[in-house]
Parts: sequence; C-alpha cells; structure tokens
Amino acid sequence: MGKDKSIFNKKIIPLRTNIDYIDSQILSLLAQRQVQVEEVVKLKKKHHIPVYHPAREEDLLSKLRAQACKANLDPNFMEDLYRVILRQSRVKQTDQMEHKGIRPDAKILIIGGGGQMGRFFASLFQKSGYDLRILTEEDWDNAKNLCKNIDLCLICVPIEKTEDIIEQIAVFLDPETILADLTSIKTRPLEKMLESHPGPVTGLHPLFGPTAGSLDKQIIVVTPGRNSDHCQWLVEQLTLWGAVIVQSSAREHDEIMEIVQALRHFATFSFGQFLYEKHARIERTLEFSSPIYRLEFGMVGRLFAQDSGLYSEIIFATKERRRLLKDYIASLSEHLEMLEANDKHLFIKKFDQIAQWFGPFSEQAMRESTFLIDKLIERF
Amino acid sequence: MGKDKSIFNKKIIPLRTNIDYIDSQILSLLAQRQVQVEEVVKLKKKHHIPVYHPAREEDLLSKLRAQACKANLDPNFMEDLYRVILRQSRVKQTDQMEHKGIRPDAKILIIGGGGQMGRFFASLFQKSGYDLRILTEEDWDNAKNLCKNIDLCLICVPIEKTEDIIEQIAVFLDPETILADLTSIKTRPLEKMLESHPGPVTGLHPLFGPTAGSLDKQIIVVTPGRNSDHCQWLVEQLTLWGAVIVQSSAREHDEIMEIVQALRHFATFSFGQFLYEKHARIERTLEFSSPIYRLEFGMVGRLFAQDSGLYSEIIFATKERRRLLKDYIASLSEHLEMLEANDKHLFIKKFDQIAQWFGPFSEQAMRESTFLIDKLIERF
Repeated sequence: MGKDKSIFNKKIIPLRTNIDYIDSQILSLLAQRQVQVEEVVKLKKKHHIPVYHPAREEDLLSKLRAQACKANLDPNFMEDLYRVILRQSRVKQTDQMEHKGIRPDAKILIIGGGGQMGRFFASLFQKSGYDLRILTEEDWDNAKNLCKNIDLCLICVPIEKTEDIIEQIAVFLDPETILADLTSIKTRPLEKMLESHPGPVTGLHPLFGPTAGSLDKQIIVVTPGRNSDHCQWLVEQLTLWGAVIVQSSAREHDEIMEIVQALRHFATFSFGQFLYEKHARIERTLEFSSPIYRLEFGMVGRLFAQDSGLYSEIIFATKERRRLLKDYIASLSEHLEMLEANDKHLFIKKFDQIAQWFGPFSEQAMRESTFLIDKLIERF
Repeated sequence: MGKDKSIFNKKIIPLRTNIDYIDSQILSLLAQRQVQVEEVVKLKKKHHIPVYHPAREEDLLSKLRAQACKANLDPNFMEDLYRVILRQSRVKQTDQMEHKGIRPDAKILIIGGGGQMGRFFASLFQKSGYDLRILTEEDWDNAKNLCKNIDLCLICVPIEKTEDIIEQIAVFLDPETILADLTSIKTRPLEKMLESHPGPVTGLHPLFGPTAGSLDKQIIVVTPGRNSDHCQWLVEQLTLWGAVIVQSSAREHDEIMEIVQALRHFATFSFGQFLYEKHARIERTLEFSSPIYRLEFGMVGRLFAQDSGLYSEIIFATKERRRLLKDYIASLSEHLEMLEANDKHLFIKKFDQIAQWFGPFSEQAMRESTFLIDKLIERF
C-alpha cells in the first residue's frame, strides 16, 4: 500500500501541474475580461447607459450553454459559473456608475444620519456629489439652520420616533423641500408628513438592512404622498444606484408588511422560543441536518443575531399587526383537535387545499430553494 | 439622443467581441481542465484513492486567491468561482467513482424497490455491480424465493407499513442476511427488526429526498442494531458513494427528528394554512420581498409542492411527535397575553434570552444565510 501510494503520488504530480497551469491561464483571461468590462463601463458612463442589461446577459448565457455542449461541458455548470462572473462584472460596473448624481447640486438633510441606515444613505449621497448635512439628536438646537434651502429632508429615525420628528422638523422646511421618510410602516408617517408639510412628500421603505453594502437589485417601496413630479429625481437617483422601485399605496404597503415582516418574524421568534423551552441541542441537531433543514434552522438563528429592539418595533408597530398575530395563534390552536384525534385524513385534506391555493408558486419555490440548497452543499 | 445611442452601439461592439472571444477561450480551458480531471479520476480509481481531497482544494483556493490579488481581481470572486468549478469536478469524479462496489458479488433485495427512494438506491447498487433483486407489492407470492441466499435485505416502504413488512419478510431470511431499513423513524422499526430477525441488523435514515440525484455530501444516519461488524461493508459502500455517515442511537435519532422533521414541517404547514385563511396575495407580496423573505416564503411554498401523504406520515408518525406539536401550540398561545398587553419589554427580554441561548450559532447562521442571499440576488 505504501509503495502503491508513492506510485500514485508520482503519477498525479504532472496532472496537478497541468491543472494548475490551466487555472493560471483562466485567471489571466478573467483579468483581461475585467479590463474589457472597465472599458464598457467608461463608455456607458459617457453615454448615460444603465449598467444592467438583462437581454445581453441572457444572450451571452445561452450562447455559452450551446458552446459548452459542443465542448462536452455541462451547460448548467457553465451557466452557474457565468452567473458568478456576470454578477462580479455588474458589481464592478455599479461601483463605478453609482457615484453619478442626478442632481449633484441638491442640498440634502438626513435626520438620524448617525444610525446605520442613515449612514448608509448618507454615504451614497455623498459619493454622488450631493451637498449633504446630517442632523443627529444632539443637533436639534441647530435644526432650523440646517433646514435652510434644502431640497430634500430625509427622515431616518426609529419607527416610534418618526411621527414626532416629522412634526418637529416640518416647521423649519421651505414649501419646496421634499419631505421623505424611510420608516418600515407607511400609512401613519405619510399622513403625518402630509399634515405637517404643505410641499412635496413621499414615503420610502428600503426592504433591506444597512449591511447590504450596495443598492444593487435591492427593493425600495415608494408610497407617493404629494407632488410626485417634484420627487421624481429622487426616485431616479435610487434607480441609478441599482435599486428596484416598487410603487404602492401606503395602505397596501402596510397590509403586505403585516405578513412579510410582523407575521414572519413573529413565527420565527416563536419557533426559537420553543426550541429554547425544549432545550433542543442545536449543535447535535445540525449534524443530523440535510441542507434544507440547515437553511431553515439558519433562518431562525439569524433572527436572534439581530437587534431585539428593532424586532420589537417591527412586531408591535401597529394594533393591526398585533391583531394579525393573535389570529395566527388562534389558527394554530385549531389544529389541536386534529393532533389530538390523530386525524391524518384531515391533515391531508387541508394540505391539498393549501397546495392548490399556492398553485404554480409552489413549483417555483421548489426550483428556487433547490438551487439554493445546491449552493449550500457546494459551500459547506 | 438617437445619434448618441448609435455612436454608443458602434463603440461597444468591438468590446463585446473581445469579451466573447475571452469567454470562448475560458470555455476551452475549462474543457481542457475537465480532461485532466478525468485523468486524475482514472488514477484515483486504479489506486483506490477517495475523490474528495479537502486539503488539495483549500490549497488550490488559497493559491488562486493570492494570484487573484496580483492580477487585480477580487479574491472572494475568484474563490466563489472556483467553488463552482471544484464542485463540478467533484461531481464528475464521484459519478465515475461511485460505481465501484465494495462487495460487488453481494446479493441484495430491496423491498419496495418500486417507490422513488427504492429506485434511487436500486440504481446505485446496480451501477456498482451488485446482484440486485426488487420486491414490489405484487411479488409477495415470490418473496420466499427472492430472499434465498441474499446478503442484504433493505426495507424501503412507507412508515406505516414498515413494521408489518419487517415481520413478514424476516421469516424468509437466512441468519447471516443483513436486515436494514430506510424509515425516517428508527426506534420501533429497529426493535421490530431485532425481534423478528436473529442476524445482523442496522437502521438507516437518508436525510434527503429521492430527487437528490447523487449521494455527494448527503447525510445518512446509521442506528446500529446487532452485529455491526457484519454491516460494515454497507456503511463503507454508502461512504464511497459520497454520503456522510452520522452514528446515533435510535432513541436519540427519533428525539432529534421530532424537531428536525415533525416540528419544522408542522410549523411550515401552519404558516401556509394561515396565509390561505387570510387570502394573502402571494404574487404581489413577492414584489415587496427582500431576498431573505423570498427565501423564507419559498420554504413554505416548497412544502406544498410535495406529497401530502408523506408529510402526514412524518407529522403523525408517533404519539411523541403529536405531543410535541401540542406543546408547540401551547407555547405560542402563551404569547397571546404579551400581544394583548402590547408588552414590548417582555418581548425584548424573551428575545435576548433566546439569543443568548443560541450563542455563536446565531452568528454562524447569519453568515451562512447571508451567503445564500447573495446567491439568490445573483440568480434572480
């Protein structure tokens, strides 16, 4: 066996050398590719063309898939690989593009610019050459002064302070100043802004955390308030930074967020609470975990790595949310009888009903999550 | 603008041609790489060396990261890219390796070989040159005959039938035949196997669905019953096919599966049921969805793309499971008061307690899920 092993070691060296040489050639080609991409960016910048070109990407991918088949390579592998390359190229391009300001002369005041989300937007505006001011809690004496001649006042404070701050700041604003907020609820802040400020008003809700790093493909909900034309440059600026804009009424936004935020986080919280009560042995459990369980369990763990204050604000934000969560508990309690009676038939009946209601979304969810599970296996 | 656009179009063509040319060179190098990898596989096969060589992979990745830095490429990008390439190379290698049988002369009977999981294992054994027989429901008259001189009898039938089938088949087995099952509960089937068969016995639980495609990095729990030495070749065969083996007692397995399977699926089912009751507008909701929500929502949708009968079996499998689920509902009901009283402080207190209990797992979960969210953004 020792001798066999040493023969193997001798024979494998030239093969590994070949592979290493091929890899260094691939690397050098990727570097050349990056140079070409930089040229494309310069050109796009000069001609004000957006970075993301889905049709070009899809075209490139389908060409590569066809070439892969001819070269005896797995086309799915080729597509996976190029999705990584195209993403990198998009990030590179956006990095260089996003600095461009739509109205770089505009004066912007961020209220709460000391918080994480405030700092994130402050840095975006600053890089794009806006005239930026920041108002933190200590600067209130200077508020009137900071509000002079500003084009946009962006409220970026915790949910529970939003309405008070709107009221306090609005009195200092010019009638032409845009008043906007980033709160994760929209109906009441928007009403308060419309009530307190006679000028242009718009609500914004960025659907991501301040750790996102860039706006590339991130969603921002826009709930128009008053004088949307006047606010248009702001929306365009967010788009140029890479954000995807979803337009909605404040009411629709809040109804959807009851589910997307309050219900989901509460369900996750309750699951974590139960694991804690039962003293579940997490480490050992993970050894028994298929990637899909690891993923779902990770979603629970992830919640508790975050700020409890933030989540209490999200969950307890409105009485509508609390009512929904009570309904959720009531809905769960209705399953007690089914469990008590060991009624599999009822379970199957309910399951099939829900499956039918979900319709094609289930299949799509299956595909998406299977893709992610493959990624998880790849990585760990 | 029209003229500007046409100048842009003219100038971008040569750049895109360059990029396409670079891409075709990369593709050709990948094809060459694949040929070299195939040579490595042949060599490994000849010398009985396992496919997966973590040290070689890590070494290769860290070399490439260093080279990337020199070439002005992002090392994280390079690592992501090569994880895709290495995974593909591993799958290719495993595809060719996994056919190797540890005991290709052995006679194997799969009971329930007509089901999805049965077919999956049947195809693995067959490719590796085992002498395979399959017993489906229609073949019971022939059972005695099929059991003659077999080395392994693998039970692969729905949970609720497992115990009966064990009893029925055991009478036909030689005392040397290994009796094993693939059921997702282990205590009772293992007891039944030990009771009914005096020879070697082992319980197996593959923690993945029959759609997995390969055993690469998939987990299989082994719960030893009797005469483990005798069963060792089977465990080695599973390992050679790429599976990761977790050893456990049947009781520990079942306790962990109460959480990993019953609780988790029930929680997901209940969430889906509530969305259905509330007529949540799924499509519109997804437009408002950050990737993380999309992912969590996808986990719900995914459940309902699967077989209701299978999930009823998993959830209602034992009275311990049903008791755990009733406890879960009770635990949720205890939050009612907190919601009623709008008691954020209590929520924060509970949250922080759970967070502390989760400990470092939360951070790890955050990293893993952030990685996946990036992948999700990359893809969609």
